[in-house]
Amino acid sequence: MKVAIMLYDGITALDAIGPYEVFATVEGMQVEFVAKNKGLIKLDSKMGYLHADLSFSEVPSADILVVPGCRPPNFKSPMNDEDTLHWIQQIHETTKWTTSVCNGSLILSTAGLLNGAEATSHWGSFDLLRSLGTIPTEERVVRQGKIVTAAGVSAGIDMALQLVAWEWGEDISKSVQLLLEYDPMPPFDAGSPKKAPAPMVEQLKMMLQELAKQEPKI
Amino acid sequence: MKVAIMLYDGITALDAIGPYEVFATVEGMQVEFVAKNKGLIKLDSKMGYLHADLSFSEVPSADILVVPGCRPPNFKSPMNDEDTLHWIQQIHETTKWTTSVCNGSLILSTAGLLNGAEATSHWGSFDLLRSLGTIPTEERVVRQGKIVTAAGVSAGIDMALQLVAWEWGEDISKSVQLLLEYDPMPPFDAGSPKKAPAPMVEQLKMMLQELAKQEPKI
Repeated sequence: MKVAIMLYDGITALDAIGPYEVFATVEGMQVEFVAKNKGLIKLDSKMGYLHADLSFSEVPSADILVVPGCRPPNFKSPMNDEDTLHWIQQIHETTKWTTSVCNGSLILSTAGLLNGAEATSHWGSFDLLRSLGTIPTEERVVRQGKIVTAAGVSAGIDMALQLVAWEWGEDISKSVQLLLEYDPMPPFDAGSPKKAPAPMVEQLKMMLQELAKQEPKI
Repeated sequence: MKVAIMLYDGITALDAIGPYEVFATVEGMQVEFVAKNKGLIKLDSKMGYLHADLSFSEVPSADILVVPGCRPPNFKSPMNDEDTLHWIQQIHETTKWTTSVCNGSLILSTAGLLNGAEATSHWGSFDLLRSLGTIPTEERVVRQGKIVTAAGVSAGIDMALQLVAWEWGEDISKSVQLLLEYDPMPPFDAGSPKKAPAPMVEQLKMMLQELAKQEPKI
């Protein structure tokens, strides 16, 4: 089976590399990094690169599509790019699973794949997701038919492990989890807006909303 | 403050990108990807690349050093490379924190930084770590003075969040955790050899030990 991970300038690296690492650990899986133009892909931090080995035109189909997210306002670039939206629509016709991580669901929604559907996203992007006609859902992994959306950044790891379990069974998913030693122990319990201190959530939400109003500079 | 993430051909992408994403989310932090020779860095899966923006000679110092791991037997390449070991020793003299993820601790140990010290590693590399004169410790994050080692692959995220808390305080660490929505929910509880089914642990341990006997082919 083939996994296509879509890259674009301004992407959040962990959104792509979390699912990559899970899928690449499944025996026999082929994972491809794909972008509109192949070559180096600038990260949202402006402090490094990923690399697209293939361009859209070289990847007309995939069994699993992964659309990662990014820091606002970088999602506007792929959302406003007809070639990108068209490639997503085209490849979605061929997939067994179409997935997103973080606010990658904004891109899937703009491509028309989540009209009236439930989906998740980074917690800071729920209002935007709603404005696009998709119903934000406070779950870490949301499945609607063959479309699976994950919450912010690190949630792509959980999403990919869940998808591996659905597609190849519980034992393969557990083996991958063990090989990646994914026995998470964050030092604090502040990883969701329900758990973090309320003033911190408000402050970061305002910061993200301000960023979202800007134009991408990557 | 400056974080240097050491890359090498055959690396595990998530070992590097987990800590990268945490550190890059701390305001004002400078993160650099460094390798013996700059340019594209082959991943252990042979299905993609990271990118080193700087070579060892361009990075004589750092506040935080991160040495990621890889699938066996790829750790042999940096362990047998004098330039790499020398750079690690040199930069360690300048750091406030020297860290490893997964079997990156084998490389730190070979560089002479963990003689008789306690450290962790991927659970499959404990025997090798012991044979190098380091004491394997079954904790997810192990601190010995300024050296901090993390367990396998995904543990680099927890290590970096812990280090951010030590260096910048609990609130900064919690903010980063919330921005990365690191509220992990793996579908199963099989992420450590203590928790996964015993036959699965034995089978994967044998597979990893067989791989470790081979020569790197990356």
